Amino acid sequence: MTRNVAHTTPYAWPWDGALDPGRVALVVISPRLGGDRLPDSRIWQEVRATAGTVQSVGGAVVQVTTTPPDRSAGVRDEHAVVGADHVLDAAGIDGFYGSPLDGLLRRLRRDQLLLAGAWLETGVHSTMRSANDRGFECLLVLDACLAYEPALEAASRSQIEMSGGIFGAVGQSVDVCAAITSA
Amino acid sequence: MTRNVAHTTPYAWPWDGALDPGRVALVVISPRLGGDRLPDSRIWQEVRATAGTVQSVGGAVVQVTTTPPDRSAGVRDEHAVVGADHVLDAAGIDGFYGSPLDGLLRRLRRDQLLLAGAWLETGVHSTMRSANDRGFECLLVLDACLAYEPALEAASRSQIEMSGGIFGAVGQSVDVCAAITSA
Amino acid sequence: MTRNVAHTTPYAWPWDGALDPGRVALVVISPRLGGDRLPDSRIWQEVRATAGTVQSVGGAVVQVTTTPPDRSAGVRDEHAVVGADHVLDAAGIDGFYGSPLDGLLRRLRRDQLLLAGAWLETGVHSTMRSANDRGFECLLVLDACLAYEPALEAASRSQIEMSGGIFGAVGQSVDVCAAITSA
Amino acid sequence: MTRNVAHTTPYAWPWDGALDPGRVALVVISPRLGGDRLPDSRIWQEVRATAGTVQSVGGAVVQVTTTPPDRSAGVRDEHAVVGADHVLDAAGIDGFYGSPLDGLLRRLRRDQLLLAGAWLETGVHSTMRSANDRGFECLLVLDACLAYEPALEAASRSQIEMSGGIFGAVGQSVDVCAAITSA
Repeated sequence: MTRNVAHTTPYAWPWDGALDPGRVALVVISPRLGGDRLPDSRIWQEVRATAGTVQSVGGAVVQVTTTPPDRSAGVRDEHAVVGADHVLDAAGIDGFYGSPLDGLLRRLRRDQLLLAGAWLETGVHSTMRSANDRGFECLLVLDACLAYEPALEAASRSQIEMSGGIFGAVGQSVDVCAAITSA
Repeated sequence: MTRNVAHTTPYAWPWDGALDPGRVALVVISPRLGGDRLPDSRIWQEVRATAGTVQSVGGAVVQVTTTPPDRSAGVRDEHAVVGADHVLDAAGIDGFYGSPLDGLLRRLRRDQLLLAGAWLETGVHSTMRSANDRGFECLLVLDACLAYEPALEAASRSQIEMSGGIFGAVGQSVDVCAAITSA
Repeated sequence: MTRNVAHTTPYAWPWDGALDPGRVALVVISPRLGGDRLPDSRIWQEVRATAGTVQSVGGAVVQVTTTPPDRSAGVRDEHAVVGADHVLDAAGIDGFYGSPLDGLLRRLRRDQLLLAGAWLETGVHSTMRSANDRGFECLLVLDACLAYEPALEAASRSQIEMSGGIFGAVGQSVDVCAAITSA
Repeated sequence: MTRNVAHTTPYAWPWDGALDPGRVALVVISPRLGGDRLPDSRIWQEVRATAGTVQSVGGAVVQVTTTPPDRSAGVRDEHAVVGADHVLDAAGIDGFYGSPLDGLLRRLRRDQLLLAGAWLETGVHSTMRSANDRGFECLLVLDACLAYEPALEAASRSQIEMSGGIFGAVGQSVDVCAAITSA
């Protein structure tokens, strides 16, 4: 019997139909304060709910604060706290750059990644691209992400779905929560 | 006197007005064969012309063949040869992943990068994002890039220009060639 | 029933007693020509014999040519060919630096590493240190390594064995071959 | 006129005779608590003195706490505080692994590195090897390092000096301080 998240595009995720909470990590991206704009704090409520469900069945939750290079560092956003098991800082917009994220996920034996947070086009996208290169099987949880430019949300989604899902697949939090609690 | 490439957006590139052919590298991305589609070979003619101009004034040209993870490896595309000084392979869609690119650019003391090649939304974008995290000052040479989905070209451009140029700037090859030969 | 390599120090390797040829990779390090000295070619005969045994039971063999930074590149040593399944180049003395080694081992699902080759104090040691940081369980196959300075061989061994095996364990090829063929 | 640190072996450091406090960073390595032994706190007094001199002329001081993989994390050692400008954590014994060290040094434009701290054979050695691969010009400040096994100190030094200084050079803090304050 295969276990997938329902309604993911462009393919049923994970590719091998072997969804396993013990292999899942929800990777939440949040930008360091000091940029020109703050994410609407309602997004973190949504992420927090998904995080709680993931944790309730043994999934891991990792939060990574991303940092644009060559800018004043700023601090973590107090509104962005989602109750993660591990809270990390990255030295770039890619959550893997200059951070312990790769080693942590490997040590925790998590290779099925759910991506969420802000901003969709910057930190979330860069981290998902990098995770895919490293061999992680990735699902963008679209409604748990916030676009910096709402007009770019559709394109950010298409860039992942193109070419058969070159960077992974796209799904919704309700389907993620349903699948992981029955897996 | 400042030296910039004309008509770049959203800011005059490079940011410090110190364009210097001895610090410039044109990084050409080409996908490994074996994907579902081949780039139109005309793009390589355009890239080759820009590469020749960059080399004529002391700029470096580096070509990187990108590889999707977990796929049969394929070979380099014979049509994509652009006369680069250095030809590398990457282990991912990001030209820096599993490749000697970072060390090479550092050894050559090149920190002003021109990005070109195919595909715009995948290899070029991932490499530019990664280069920016590493502190390189990046210019996407838009007409020397080929979009996998032409409908996504505008969004790929906007993702770079947003937030004041979060991943660098965007320009055209004619302006790059004019600026670098008079710098 | 546990499966370990006999006579390894300072602990029975692998630590969990779960030796599995399907998880094993022999990583052979060889220096790029152009250094001041060539490894005695007899070492490659020994490595080749171990490599053949590892392959006969489903283990992987990966050869990495290391390169000192900021030196003329040189070429691969023709005498160092050991019949590897994968042949890679690294951009540093550490076989992981600027190379596809990490991604390859992950894709092949190999996390029990046997280290061999030349030079013991440089490329082999740097690669083993780096592998250990990345979570691989490592065994130095001491008689399949060649020391640049024979007087430093004992210290190179002690650096691994100290503090309970901080970088892994040390063993001999005869014990590796016996264990892996009966695992 | 060349500017070197006196009495370094096996070559006059830095190789180009261009010692420049604005390019220098003292990288201090300290192990995370939780290992089997604590460094003697007197070493940090020595490192602190050198750090103060380096800072007084515009050099940067970066402290990195290293972490063995797959062990309980422990905390930073309170006795190891040396007044660094930047304090980082690494995810491995190599101070560059899973840390922002590379990006930080690049952003600060520091390419002449002084290495000090504990333990000499583990964290200091791994970090120096990795720095050398990345193109940094490295000097081990031997009397500002503490060996885990005093019997291995000579070999740790020889491994750096061998082959013409394959990982850099070795010097003493008194000569470093004299050179940097008159550079």
